[in-house]
Amino acid sequence: MQAETGDMREEERSGVPDRVVTSVLEAVDERDEARLSDLLEPLHAADIADVLEQIGPAERRELLTLWSAGIDGEILSEISDSIREEVIEHLPPEVIAEAVRELDTDDVVDILEDLEEQQQEAILGALDRADRVAVEQAMAYPEYSAGRLMQREVVVAPIHWTVGETIDFLRRSEELPDQFYHVILVDPRMKPQGYVTLGRLLSSRREVRLADIEEESFRTIRATIEESEVAYIFNQYHLISCPVVDENDRLVGIITIDDAMNVLDEEHEEDILRLAGVGDESSLSDGPVATARQRLPWLVANLFTASLSALVISGFEATIAQLVTLAALMPIVASTGGIAGTQSLAVAVRALATRNLTSANAPRVVRRELMAGLLNGLGLALILGLAGFVIFGDPLLGAVLGMAMICNQVVAALGGVLVPLGLNRLGLDPALASGTFVTTLTDVMGFFVFLGLATLVLT
Amino acid sequence: MQAETGDMREEERSGVPDRVVTSVLEAVDERDEARLSDLLEPLHAADIADVLEQIGPAERRELLTLWSAGIDGEILSEISDSIREEVIEHLPPEVIAEAVRELDTDDVVDILEDLEEQQQEAILGALDRADRVAVEQAMAYPEYSAGRLMQREVVVAPIHWTVGETIDFLRRSEELPDQFYHVILVDPRMKPQGYVTLGRLLSSRREVRLADIEEESFRTIRATIEESEVAYIFNQYHLISCPVVDENDRLVGIITIDDAMNVLDEEHEEDILRLAGVGDESSLSDGPVATARQRLPWLVANLFTASLSALVISGFEATIAQLVTLAALMPIVASTGGIAGTQSLAVAVRALATRNLTSANAPRVVRRELMAGLLNGLGLALILGLAGFVIFGDPLLGAVLGMAMICNQVVAALGGVLVPLGLNRLGLDPALASGTFVTTLTDVMGFFVFLGLATLVLT
Repeated sequence: MQAETGDMREEERSGVPDRVVTSVLEAVDERDEARLSDLLEPLHAADIADVLEQIGPAERRELLTLWSAGIDGEILSEISDSIREEVIEHLPPEVIAEAVRELDTDDVVDILEDLEEQQQEAILGALDRADRVAVEQAMAYPEYSAGRLMQREVVVAPIHWTVGETIDFLRRSEELPDQFYHVILVDPRMKPQGYVTLGRLLSSRREVRLADIEEESFRTIRATIEESEVAYIFNQYHLISCPVVDENDRLVGIITIDDAMNVLDEEHEEDILRLAGVGDESSLSDGPVATARQRLPWLVANLFTASLSALVISGFEATIAQLVTLAALMPIVASTGGIAGTQSLAVAVRALATRNLTSANAPRVVRRELMAGLLNGLGLALILGLAGFVIFGDPLLGAVLGMAMICNQVVAALGGVLVPLGLNRLGLDPALASGTFVTTLTDVMGFFVFLGLATLVLT
Repeated sequence: MQAETGDMREEERSGVPDRVVTSVLEAVDERDEARLSDLLEPLHAADIADVLEQIGPAERRELLTLWSAGIDGEILSEISDSIREEVIEHLPPEVIAEAVRELDTDDVVDILEDLEEQQQEAILGALDRADRVAVEQAMAYPEYSAGRLMQREVVVAPIHWTVGETIDFLRRSEELPDQFYHVILVDPRMKPQGYVTLGRLLSSRREVRLADIEEESFRTIRATIEESEVAYIFNQYHLISCPVVDENDRLVGIITIDDAMNVLDEEHEEDILRLAGVGDESSLSDGPVATARQRLPWLVANLFTASLSALVISGFEATIAQLVTLAALMPIVASTGGIAGTQSLAVAVRALATRNLTSANAPRVVRRELMAGLLNGLGLALILGLAGFVIFGDPLLGAVLGMAMICNQVVAALGGVLVPLGLNRLGLDPALASGTFVTTLTDVMGFFVFLGLATLVLT
């Protein structure tokens, strides 16, 4: 086996080089099966999945027809949920059956979850009995629970064993999981008592008892907890694998770091997309109609919230009619408030996701946002007030601009942190706050304060 | 050792319970050293670091004075960069020396990176000679490179060894890394040739040759590549550990998944904060002045870009003077465009970060955004146009609103994808595009198209 440093030196970037995607598209276009195989076979399954995601639906269908024999279980489980159903539809049943049979049960569950019932049954039917039962048991756990994430293939040893006994047992075992990093120590009722890293096992003498080399820190996860909790635990405590137990504390499976990392990645994606007001189901391989449909709800919502701004402004039409310049200046106050609100919001949502913002420090953080908003409000007011005075030669107009700016910066900073905190307390995802709410708040307040002050002072 | 499921059942949430933080604050307030120890000692180092981050600077100083003996290397390396310098300042030199001596070299490097030179030297002085040399060598690699991330403690075996020879060697080794998951196979010049998982090693018979049980897929990482590239490789290929080589392909260290996961987490944080126009150095433990200072640059930038909108509007003052209702309606067109731009931007930035958006599929994605923008523009135009007609009884006003909405939705969708694509092509971080640019674009276009059309049609 050759190290792949050669490739990396050439490009200094991993992943599929653009020229490979271009060549694949050419090969598909020419229906050149041999060239397609030559291009795809050397790639890692994750990269092949990326190629499938990057090309258009028509080319994808063509590629699958030409190269269906090349699609294996690993590729299937790397493919993004958004196109998996479509890919499976275009593959012959025997290819799918072959593909899923080589996978660990957690990967089969991951594939099954997003499929239609008919496709699910076809896949379940392809599994042998033991695997089918294991998959069905996993599917009995709630969606997005630890039970769905775990694999049932575990490596255990009675807690009274020695290193030698364990190694002999492992050498006799016919089927071990592809990847395992610990031997879990269990009592006679299959309750996990601790674990031993494979490194310790390898470096200890045969007569050493497992109980004497177990890891100091050990934790288990309930099968019913949410997967976001699982991701947090892996990230916070730097776990590589963690045993999963049922309500009687008996071992039912194990979750490994790759599954936890996947969840973490999906959560980050959700956070970014939700903050921007995009449905979290969105994917780059969606067509224009699906894309438009996902985004429309937030846009329509914004249409209504923006009407609030319009309503506020129309209340001051008499003032604007007297001094039309106000119409030109009002978006400055509103949009700078929008930016400040977005800043405060992003920090708060992120801190809630990493659990750095808790009810223990929330009052301090809210005070900090208030002070920061005030400080920036003063700074911006100075710049804008002076500019207003210099350009329009009216000190009162400058003062109104400055005062409105200060008020709106404070509202923005507070809104940005209080809205996600409130959603969190209600048990909702703080990222759902999204720009829309906070921007509406800062728009409405910005227009109201600026035009209100202008009405009082200037007319 | 007891599994910690008990705790989890009680709260169904990991991390530090709020009541513990509250109790810690009480103990600090009462200078009750014994109670503080009782509260903190049972916690994982990562949780203790969280407590330190969540409390205010004054309480933190007090806690460190009361409990300095409790701070070990693990806690130091879990503490966020933003408060580490402050923590180290308040600890006695002997505590720091003791703490860093137990750490792997990569963790020492991680701590050193963000310190002042004087603090750096104090820590280097505390290490024994071999460790100091290893740390200094790592520090010679560029910041944010793989060389800085790797640990130098590696477990290697000549490629011609058998399983038995390897196990005997491991049992004889005095000092093995805390965590290792593979034995790296090297040739006589220390060039990595492949690796064997510990699971395979444990389950194979003593006489089996390592070369016969090596993993099928094997890659190495150059010490000079960027850490973001490292994170991508670990995530894409589901690696647990990966050997690092120098420019002559010789083994110089190893990177493990926990380091890669850290980088990934930091990158996500950067993406969210940059998109929102917050400096990526921002942290929840910053005071109000630091917070205000980080956010001010974008706010000032926005002040100038918002002035563009003001300039555009002031060009139409005559039109607004004739029909003041336009001033109330124009923010609707602009803000709905802002939301659409943010949506398109978030999807594009995320897709660039995960390398799903490449030059191979960029034209297709841009076309998709254009179409989606057009579709949503039509939908919103219909709603808004009808509403405009019904409320103001003026079909022309409705038509102007609708037309402006369609134009601005298309501009927003295109801007949201083209701006980050352009930044990426220039070698800049696409997340730097941030809301500010795209919102300015949609504001300016929104006001211009709406007021322009109104001038042509309505006056």
